[in-house]
Amino acid sequence: MKTIKMSIIGLGGRGTWWLGELLKMEDVEITAVCDKFEDRMERGRKMCEDRYGRDVYGSTKWQDVVNRDDGSEAVMITTYWNDHVKIAIAAMKKGKYAAFEVGPAQSIRQCWDLVRTYEETGVPCMLMENCCYNREEMTVLNMIKKGLFGELLHCQGGYQHDLRGVANSFSRDHERAWHYLHRNAELYPTHELGPIMTYLDINRGNRLMSLNSMATKSRGLKKYVNDKFGPDHPFADADFRLGDIVTTTIRCANGETIVLTHDTSSPRPYSRGGRVQGTCGLWMEDLHALHIEGRTSGEVWEPMEKYWEEFEHPLWKKTKAADFTGGHGGMDWLVMRAFLEAVRRKIQTPIDVYDSATLMAVALLSEESISMGSATVAIPDFTDGMWIKREPGPKSIFSLSEVDDSIFEGDVEF
Amino acid sequence: MKTIKMSIIGLGGRGTWWLGELLKMEDVEITAVCDKFEDRMERGRKMCEDRYGRDVYGSTKWQDVVNRDDGSEAVMITTYWNDHVKIAIAAMKKGKYAAFEVGPAQSIRQCWDLVRTYEETGVPCMLMENCCYNREEMTVLNMIKKGLFGELLHCQGGYQHDLRGVANSFSRDHERAWHYLHRNAELYPTHELGPIMTYLDINRGNRLMSLNSMATKSRGLKKYVNDKFGPDHPFADADFRLGDIVTTTIRCANGETIVLTHDTSSPRPYSRGGRVQGTCGLWMEDLHALHIEGRTSGEVWEPMEKYWEEFEHPLWKKTKAADFTGGHGGMDWLVMRAFLEAVRRKIQTPIDVYDSATLMAVALLSEESISMGSATVAIPDFTDGMWIKREPGPKSIFSLSEVDDSIFEGDVEF
Repeated sequence: MKTIKMSIIGLGGRGTWWLGELLKMEDVEITAVCDKFEDRMERGRKMCEDRYGRDVYGSTKWQDVVNRDDGSEAVMITTYWNDHVKIAIAAMKKGKYAAFEVGPAQSIRQCWDLVRTYEETGVPCMLMENCCYNREEMTVLNMIKKGLFGELLHCQGGYQHDLRGVANSFSRDHERAWHYLHRNAELYPTHELGPIMTYLDINRGNRLMSLNSMATKSRGLKKYVNDKFGPDHPFADADFRLGDIVTTTIRCANGETIVLTHDTSSPRPYSRGGRVQGTCGLWMEDLHALHIEGRTSGEVWEPMEKYWEEFEHPLWKKTKAADFTGGHGGMDWLVMRAFLEAVRRKIQTPIDVYDSATLMAVALLSEESISMGSATVAIPDFTDGMWIKREPGPKSIFSLSEVDDSIFEGDVEF
Repeated sequence: MKTIKMSIIGLGGRGTWWLGELLKMEDVEITAVCDKFEDRMERGRKMCEDRYGRDVYGSTKWQDVVNRDDGSEAVMITTYWNDHVKIAIAAMKKGKYAAFEVGPAQSIRQCWDLVRTYEETGVPCMLMENCCYNREEMTVLNMIKKGLFGELLHCQGGYQHDLRGVANSFSRDHERAWHYLHRNAELYPTHELGPIMTYLDINRGNRLMSLNSMATKSRGLKKYVNDKFGPDHPFADADFRLGDIVTTTIRCANGETIVLTHDTSSPRPYSRGGRVQGTCGLWMEDLHALHIEGRTSGEVWEPMEKYWEEFEHPLWKKTKAADFTGGHGGMDWLVMRAFLEAVRRKIQTPIDVYDSATLMAVALLSEESISMGSATVAIPDFTDGMWIKREPGPKSIFSLSEVDDSIFEGDVEF
């Protein structure tokens, strides 16, 4: 089996974790590591040395790694949010597949630059939205494609996660805090919007048309700092711009609506709050329950358990994802294997440049909407009209828009 | 104990049910009944005769009943939605308290007319929003006032109820179908927005500032008619304007946000989908669960059951509401007793004219927003600026905005 050579740029917590996972894969060879902080870069080199028994190239300049002619075919980008696109563009221009962690783009122009770079170079890139590969979301996708919900009408989701600790994290390791201090927006929609885009065939016969966002006042982070560290904390008087809860509504070309919730500054249990509703029934993630006309008797909920066996996504049945305990319960492993398969076969990535640009644009658009009193703003069509006739990705790799159980057959060992 | 004399106008299903309940109350005397259909009016007279052993006045003209000098102090209005306001205004001008069932106003001017009539006559009126008196909502209100959630940030709710049967109900008994056929709006927000307004002290130190609405395509009703009755049904080709799911976001003067969902054209279990979130925790109705900082250990949900004993609203502890099996589990009984107490004492109704106008305006404003591509529209301040300094209602009757356990002491028998 062919070995995929790749480098990794950005070795904070998440990047270092990814490096460890990539080093475990028999068909992957890490050719270079990079972090702008020397200690983190050296820690990465040490991990490679321990694994390979030899030196691996390292640099504190991402340009050195991207431009290096070391036979690598791909770059994994796990830097701060702000640097994802510029590094990805440089990698694609060098002919290397670019994978980058989730996060917002910093301008709409940046999204277009990413798209134009792909169109000029033909080199794919992929926003590594792991939740697209989560077990429950993929099972719901399978149910949708099998028609259980009928014609889809409405989806909901949220990033609802108590992250108040960021208010005390203005270190080199936590970029998020700086965004919370300066930006009032749906900053982090991709964990729910990624799966929802697969449900609704976005950029493949459907598209996101317009959105508006509304934010609550900002209270949680300031309260947290004062309650926990007292009035002498450097951020005790900080003016955090991010509203504690941000609600975004989106309308799609085919008439469906989407509601997103960003809720990370308050005490609460984690939830992505998924909801999928069609003419024949609905799923509610918080309840882990469904109501399906013709299957469910009476106006009641049925537990998701009753549906796992029949509808679990083939990818979860066929692979060892469920046995993979690290990486958010297997979805990290699947999203990386999906990217690596595309690199190996030199085909399109399942989350492609148009999906990535769309996902990365939402934060900016929601910021515009909030700043204009929740005005409705148009969402760019990054496909330049191709969405009308675009088909789901090639069947040789699992497509997010269809269920294909021929994937991963025989030619990859896990 | 003083007997309250009142009449009732509109004797369809709901009105006839209300008449039956009022006839059971020892301190209420029905002086007149009205329905535009003679058979329904006569059925009401018969119910009165059976109870009182004598004739009771009846008419098919609401003007006859409103203008009658029969010593009555109040009118209960349970007609079609479109007639609520004009009958209420006539009653108030005649010096009679007006109670009307929930439903949207038909214009913003109608809301202002209601307000001006109250201000000119001094006669109160009340939109009978029963869900303000429901056990779980009142208990949540009690928790809010006791500070459990900290400073409030965000509320959600919905009218999520499979009402597809209305597509086959274009009879004299069902006005809703005509609205579904002609209007794309958040047609029925009061069951969730009523309680939310009590949580957020709306019109009493806070107010609704602006809203926007977004609707899905319309599929459910047409599908239902065709699936159930076939292509020859008179509404098999009907162009129902109402989107199947309508999402409305509202921003309040004090910086809180509200999300409402209207979802009545799809198969689903009933849910008002309540959510209340503050700086210290949140409640989720669908889960019947809470997460309260300092009480809940870990990032988990606690069942509502753990909180009932400590936080059940005094009204539910002190009255027999919980034993009252009819009328949506006691809340109907409570909302009527609240109205009757105001009539008896000649004081303000707990849901007053400003609350009623606000609640009735939302449907129209959401319709405007949808028709303008989800534009954000201003919500009128029906208090003319008084909201800034207005206090909750008098303590002698239960106030929706505060918890007062001195209510109903001794002077009313249930």
